[in-house]
Amino acid sequence: MRPRRRETARAASAPSERTQRYRQLLNPFDPVRIFSADQVEAMHEAALGILERQGMRVLSPRGRGVFAAAGASVDEDTHMVRLERGLVEQALHTVPAEADLLARNPQRSCRVGGRHVVFAPVSGPPSVSDAAHGKHAGNLADYQDWVRASQAFDVIHVLGQMVEPQDTPIHERHLDTSYAQLTLGDKVPYFYCRGDGQLQDCFDMLRITQGIDVAQFRAAPHCYTIVNTNSPLQLDLPMTDGILYFAEHGQLVIITPFTLAGAMAPITIAGALTLAHAEALFGITLAQLVRPGAPVMYGSFTSNVDMKSGSPAFGTPEYAKAAFGAGQLARRIGVPWRCSSATAANAADAQAAYESQMSLWGALLGGCHFVLHAAGWLEGGLTASIEKFILDVEMLQMFAELFQPVAASAEEIGLDAVAEVGPGGHFFAAAHTMQRYRDAFYSPLVSDWRNYGAWTDGGAKTATERAGRLWHETLAAFQPPPLDAAVREELDAFVQRRRSEGGAPPVS
Amino acid sequence: MRPRRRETARAASAPSERTQRYRQLLNPFDPVRIFSADQVEAMHEAALGILERQGMRVLSPRGRGVFAAAGASVDEDTHMVRLERGLVEQALHTVPAEADLLARNPQRSCRVGGRHVVFAPVSGPPSVSDAAHGKHAGNLADYQDWVRASQAFDVIHVLGQMVEPQDTPIHERHLDTSYAQLTLGDKVPYFYCRGDGQLQDCFDMLRITQGIDVAQFRAAPHCYTIVNTNSPLQLDLPMTDGILYFAEHGQLVIITPFTLAGAMAPITIAGALTLAHAEALFGITLAQLVRPGAPVMYGSFTSNVDMKSGSPAFGTPEYAKAAFGAGQLARRIGVPWRCSSATAANAADAQAAYESQMSLWGALLGGCHFVLHAAGWLEGGLTASIEKFILDVEMLQMFAELFQPVAASAEEIGLDAVAEVGPGGHFFAAAHTMQRYRDAFYSPLVSDWRNYGAWTDGGAKTATERAGRLWHETLAAFQPPPLDAAVREELDAFVQRRRSEGGAPPVS
Repeated sequence: MRPRRRETARAASAPSERTQRYRQLLNPFDPVRIFSADQVEAMHEAALGILERQGMRVLSPRGRGVFAAAGASVDEDTHMVRLERGLVEQALHTVPAEADLLARNPQRSCRVGGRHVVFAPVSGPPSVSDAAHGKHAGNLADYQDWVRASQAFDVIHVLGQMVEPQDTPIHERHLDTSYAQLTLGDKVPYFYCRGDGQLQDCFDMLRITQGIDVAQFRAAPHCYTIVNTNSPLQLDLPMTDGILYFAEHGQLVIITPFTLAGAMAPITIAGALTLAHAEALFGITLAQLVRPGAPVMYGSFTSNVDMKSGSPAFGTPEYAKAAFGAGQLARRIGVPWRCSSATAANAADAQAAYESQMSLWGALLGGCHFVLHAAGWLEGGLTASIEKFILDVEMLQMFAELFQPVAASAEEIGLDAVAEVGPGGHFFAAAHTMQRYRDAFYSPLVSDWRNYGAWTDGGAKTATERAGRLWHETLAAFQPPPLDAAVREELDAFVQRRRSEGGAPPVS
Repeated sequence: MRPRRRETARAASAPSERTQRYRQLLNPFDPVRIFSADQVEAMHEAALGILERQGMRVLSPRGRGVFAAAGASVDEDTHMVRLERGLVEQALHTVPAEADLLARNPQRSCRVGGRHVVFAPVSGPPSVSDAAHGKHAGNLADYQDWVRASQAFDVIHVLGQMVEPQDTPIHERHLDTSYAQLTLGDKVPYFYCRGDGQLQDCFDMLRITQGIDVAQFRAAPHCYTIVNTNSPLQLDLPMTDGILYFAEHGQLVIITPFTLAGAMAPITIAGALTLAHAEALFGITLAQLVRPGAPVMYGSFTSNVDMKSGSPAFGTPEYAKAAFGAGQLARRIGVPWRCSSATAANAADAQAAYESQMSLWGALLGGCHFVLHAAGWLEGGLTASIEKFILDVEMLQMFAELFQPVAASAEEIGLDAVAEVGPGGHFFAAAHTMQRYRDAFYSPLVSDWRNYGAWTDGGAKTATERAGRLWHETLAAFQPPPLDAAVREELDAFVQRRRSEGGAPPVS
């Protein structure tokens, strides 16, 4: 657990300020349930039925080969792969219920599963935006800034693919993004599944920075990836091969169907969740066929669309319900669960905040282990917003504080203070207060609690405006984590060699 | 439960749009717990100990008289009243676990307790604000507009004292606010406790509009009030006498200590909750002494202050923890529980949204029965914000939707649709979709789900800007509920007579 006081020694007479080292979070709450046990069972059975009768289309010949070798029914004309339930159930027996993700800095290692909670930044937007300048196509300098920002806050536990750096050549982009993650940060990195050639480079670069050999690397997860199925019922080539490559190497793969109810999935929450469950089971089974015991997560991303326009919606009541339900399905099969924080808002405004809150409460009260897109997501995931990133960090820190245990000992209740102060008095100067005031409460990042006059005198800045300023202050103060000079030299040489060899083309 | 389709008959081939008649809400979720059962017991015992050893100062001679007559220890020099635990426990036996609040329009009647949830508008701000014009002291025209807005949305279940109309004379202000509530709305009204004279006028006016005699009025609650203790451990004259008057008349009194940890209460959550619990028990006991079985609620309003500036904070992690804990204490004593939606933000911005969300989730996942300040609260309660009101209505409607039950029948899951669409297809035209698309999902009030281009073409309005426009549209479309001409004539005559008699001065 996060220490409540600074780790440095200090005199007992000078209580420290509350620290904000939210590195290891434990969720103390029992998960909220929205479906009955019978309903969960009905959805699980229906999903198994889909895989038995209909199956999924697998575009990767290697993937179909793995399934065929395991005894699945593979149709090489239609590329449809059907799974008997026994194959799925056998796979579920070998999934680890928890897994440690090992970072370069051991203090940044984190655990998925159990009561542990991991927050990951937004992933995948093509654009970056801020309130002053609007949107632009993401570039490598943006990506590096987003690594710095994600590294800077302890409540962000892993790194990610926060924006697509479109000014870098596609054969070398994975080298650039991996280099940024591995040198500007020391948290667990995220590598895209765009072919084995790129992944081999990424894994080699990670091994160089951690100073480990292939056997050490394969013995435990050191990085993660997201595999999205192509709902409904399809798994494309890079995604399938990504499952194979990550599972072979024992790295964490998060299998996430993206099921918008009414568009790529049935219009009901139960229907969309059932389809997603079938697809996730399918991907999890593939990973376990490749390597029983490979670390995988059950990803859910079920929301609804506006049935008037077809626009996707996020952070809706249906989204929160789907999160609660997905958590129940994940627990039914005993696999760690990944969810998201999302919004359809186009500005980092009140809508962005309340939709993200609905997402976060749905995920975290639903018992989620890993929240992707937890900071920076805007505009349905099409842009990485700098103000939204900071607002999200504030919200995540608030949840991290909410998770801290409460005490109710006689000393904590403070009856002596109540007796000391008496009717109509105040507690500001009570001994019970003086002993605790420095670290009693969360100290906010963005929230402004001044009165209206002071706030107006300070320029009447909205939370979004304050967040924009904090982004720039964070970057200005950023110091990259130390990296041994010899390691950096080896890493630089590797990247230079691979560039000269032409990098590795993305597979699609 | 709210009907999912319009009540009017219509052809089966034309599915109706989803209705938003959120009149009777049932919370399906099991309450979140943050304290262990032992910790709850320790806080309850500590609170009983405070009342036994220290007691509360009661500034009303009548209140002290009621306590003395019941055998409490009353010190007429210090005005301190100490209660044996037997007296408190006896009172708790007679508190109704649930109560029906009877409105003029029976469809607006609502229930407190059990799984029922009631949302009430903001109460008490001296000022009104909007983004375009800033703040101004509240006046009667403002108050009337706030009644109209509170009446207009079904998700607001009762009326309130949404802003103080400072342009009306204080002897007649209760006549003006009651007249607005009773003629512009048909929901359950809120009357301030500012002396028996004012309350008698308010009760008489309510009886006139409902066409009931005193016996009928006293037989069931038709209105509500809030009694704030003067924490720590003090109950002033109008508050004490308000408990007496409401309890005598069988009307709902919500007893709410306002305990800011570190200021008017111990700095710890357990300490602040224990003090609040003691004070609420004290007020509840008084009400039950006056009339065993009188409808009362256990109000909680525990938050923290910024220990650097002393500024109150709301919607903080500590606030949500205190809400969960207060719910546990309320269930320990079996009394319906009131909580709040609050923020310290000075603008209806992202901070206002995320702090209010933290408050609402704390209240609603904590099992709250009655949320005061659920719409319009801004700036620590010092202003009623028109944009915040609309943003809050959106959030409340989202919770109302979250409360709707989910189904998982075979028909609902829609395996036929999955088979019909097949791999890589879409569900927009599936029969399963066509049967449901009109009312499948919540249709938002403020949230804008258009893509960035369409949103930009539409003027790139933030949620706060859209909310401001919706406020004015709501007022422009407002129609007061029907009121019998003879009833209105009688009401007008009553008000005219009482004005000519000089009204009734507030008691303080």
